[in-house]
Amino acid sequence: MSEEDDGIIFRTRKWVRPEDLNANGTLFGGSLLRWIDEEAAIYAIIQLGSESVVTKYVSEINFVNSARQGDIVEMGLRATRFGRTSLTMRAEVRNLFTREQILVIEKMVFVHLGPDGRPAPHGYSTITFERNRIPERHRDVLDRAVADG
Amino acid sequence: MSEEDDGIIFRTRKWVRPEDLNANGTLFGGSLLRWIDEEAAIYAIIQLGSESVVTKYVSEINFVNSARQGDIVEMGLRATRFGRTSLTMRAEVRNLFTREQILVIEKMVFVHLGPDGRPAPHGYSTITFERNRIPERHRDVLDRAVADG
Amino acid sequence: MSEEDDGIIFRTRKWVRPEDLNANGTLFGGSLLRWIDEEAAIYAIIQLGSESVVTKYVSEINFVNSARQGDIVEMGLRATRFGRTSLTMRAEVRNLFTREQILVIEKMVFVHLGPDGRPAPHGYSTITFERNRIPERHRDVLDRAVADG
Amino acid sequence: MSEEDDGIIFRTRKWVRPEDLNANGTLFGGSLLRWIDEEAAIYAIIQLGSESVVTKYVSEINFVNSARQGDIVEMGLRATRFGRTSLTMRAEVRNLFTREQILVIEKMVFVHLGPDGRPAPHGYSTITFERNRIPERHRDVLDRAVADG
Amino acid sequence: MSEEDDGIIFRTRKWVRPEDLNANGTLFGGSLLRWIDEEAAIYAIIQLGSESVVTKYVSEINFVNSARQGDIVEMGLRATRFGRTSLTMRAEVRNLFTREQILVIEKMVFVHLGPDGRPAPHGYSTITFERNRIPERHRDVLDRAVADG
Amino acid sequence: MSEEDDGIIFRTRKWVRPEDLNANGTLFGGSLLRWIDEEAAIYAIIQLGSESVVTKYVSEINFVNSARQGDIVEMGLRATRFGRTSLTMRAEVRNLFTREQILVIEKMVFVHLGPDGRPAPHGYSTITFERNRIPERHRDVLDRAVADG
Repeated sequence: MSEEDDGIIFRTRKWVRPEDLNANGTLFGGSLLRWIDEEAAIYAIIQLGSESVVTKYVSEINFVNSARQGDIVEMGLRATRFGRTSLTMRAEVRNLFTREQILVIEKMVFVHLGPDGRPAPHGYSTITFERNRIPERHRDVLDRAVADG
Repeated sequence: MSEEDDGIIFRTRKWVRPEDLNANGTLFGGSLLRWIDEEAAIYAIIQLGSESVVTKYVSEINFVNSARQGDIVEMGLRATRFGRTSLTMRAEVRNLFTREQILVIEKMVFVHLGPDGRPAPHGYSTITFERNRIPERHRDVLDRAVADG
Repeated sequence: MSEEDDGIIFRTRKWVRPEDLNANGTLFGGSLLRWIDEEAAIYAIIQLGSESVVTKYVSEINFVNSARQGDIVEMGLRATRFGRTSLTMRAEVRNLFTREQILVIEKMVFVHLGPDGRPAPHGYSTITFERNRIPERHRDVLDRAVADG
Repeated sequence: MSEEDDGIIFRTRKWVRPEDLNANGTLFGGSLLRWIDEEAAIYAIIQLGSESVVTKYVSEINFVNSARQGDIVEMGLRATRFGRTSLTMRAEVRNLFTREQILVIEKMVFVHLGPDGRPAPHGYSTITFERNRIPERHRDVLDRAVADG
Repeated sequence: MSEEDDGIIFRTRKWVRPEDLNANGTLFGGSLLRWIDEEAAIYAIIQLGSESVVTKYVSEINFVNSARQGDIVEMGLRATRFGRTSLTMRAEVRNLFTREQILVIEKMVFVHLGPDGRPAPHGYSTITFERNRIPERHRDVLDRAVADG
Repeated sequence: MSEEDDGIIFRTRKWVRPEDLNANGTLFGGSLLRWIDEEAAIYAIIQLGSESVVTKYVSEINFVNSARQGDIVEMGLRATRFGRTSLTMRAEVRNLFTREQILVIEKMVFVHLGPDGRPAPHGYSTITFERNRIPERHRDVLDRAVADG
């Protein structure tokens, strides 16, 4: 079974720099949470074909191991449930070389908002591994590309 | 019953500036998590009298309401359980004026580490509302102050 | 005499992290000034019930002591004079544990601006210790809350 | 021919936020360069099995298209030449949805440094698509994992 | 021949702080690129009398020497060619005290954009050493100053 | 009388970007203070030939005018008094094009510290317009350059 068909796919990486450290010299938990939240937003936008998504709920977070200056960490996500207006994902951050888990989150729930700022149906029920759900704002560019092609 | 004897005490405030916004123009969830993690670390240091504390576990997080540019948010914490090497806190972020909840976390667990980087007993079992648990590094300054006084 | 009736009230705290240090490894003066300016803006908004406030004048600043990585500092403010369009505050930053003063500013003056961007009367002449002066933008939320209640 | 065997592999993504914009409201060129330089460093560390790498040379950079707030961009790299002490890569940043190129760099050269800070042989001559070139600092962790397993 | 008539003029300086370092403890290449891009934008605005300029092309970049925490670097620029809609500059970053070159860029090309976002003629063909090409937005202020004077 | 012999010399410039704005959309006072403090530190290092300098005192600060996104501001300094262990400077921030003053500080005092962290004589009594007072750490580089030359 390929990496794409099963489990979490790791994409974005970060190189832990001095500005990411807490006062003890280890990776600041708040930086980690910031990184995984941004990556989850990106993943949700790709799955739901809409930029209008917000973090609604995050299940318990285990900080399994720490990281140090110079470590490279990678962030992974996997859609686990498509609700009518929401998307649930599993998230993991791990050390790129040792594959030690740094942080695991069983459920991150993002909600799709309509123009009125309220939850709105997104119309999807399965994972995509492509970028074939294009947010409306970008469709013109693609149509033009096809016409030119 | 006074604010100090019961429930969460709100201390640190943030004024939501352009750099805190996500691409939708509302407060970036990752910034929120970064702020509350820093505030929880400070609270834990005060309760445990040690700077050697790390985030170990965060229970589920509800993003109840969003915030916008120009909003002032305040962060509140309350110790709910003193373990042998850990401290559990309840956390809340709310809009300073409307008191609308923005984010609620039932349990944030910090662990006290010894010089070997492993969990170590902290020796406390009750909340302090003072700054009377002084990290070792600062005791000299205070001793000197007493001697001078 | 209680802490609330007299003198400065300390609220927001910062944990000094690597990104706050100058090239000598001590707390960067510019970071300190940035923090206290933000805290003063928040304090002024609470006192004047308006988000439309700007820093107009800062009296002499004494950098009494420095701070180091891992120190926790807290910022304190106290309104000292209500002008017709302005508010004057006294500010202090200190080490949370040792209570050593880090920075003292006798006068920070913020001005309330009207919709035309010019100084405008704010209508207040005494300190509030509540959040009972609500910026206009937030009143709807509160009215609705009362109606729902 | 698979994506892995040929051409650039895109990994890290960024969601363009207000803090990444220049004063004209489009993506700040300096942010883009900062992102691609970090991603190239990570890529070089993986290829050379050493964290001791520095940017030495960047060939001409074409800013083909701009990006706007809310766009998602992805960064891609591909090793094109293994020197004795250096690694040359091709880099591209593109819009994740439209696949429009944003920035193209034909050659980014990183150099491997020895403990004396001078260029040192890295010992590799082909691309790896695994993380099987482990920086020395991490080998203990892996050995222990094998022993435990 | 004076410094103003020939060669690069160095203006903006940076004091390398912990937040500018990469994980190896030397100056992060990405920070350097960010700094010089901002300085080039400012230089282009002064030469072209318009704030509507974007980075279009950067020729090869040599990272000649590194810099360390506490070093002061200065950024220099020099217009080398005025195109119809573009400006080409030479850029250099050096250590302020030792004058060692840190980074050299032979050509940075910025393009002037019209209101429609497309390249537009800027109307200049020679270097100015004054600030006598005033972006339109600021002309009112100056006219008023003359009238008042 | 030349610009160099008299009055303030303006060097470092900043292009006001979204991340520098306060919640009202004008330049954040705290950012301004951070910028001028860094520039003053650099100026003091050049005058005193030592990197071991700290901000000790800042006289009253007038925020004369504000600045907006897209404005270019420039920072100027001028040594006004050489004490035995200190240096006093006059500082000004102004709009590069309109030359409107944004902020004026009559006295910024930096102190030179010895290896023990206490004020130490710096040995200078007049302004230099060169970089001929080289911090000790950099002298080797220069000696080597002379020997090589």
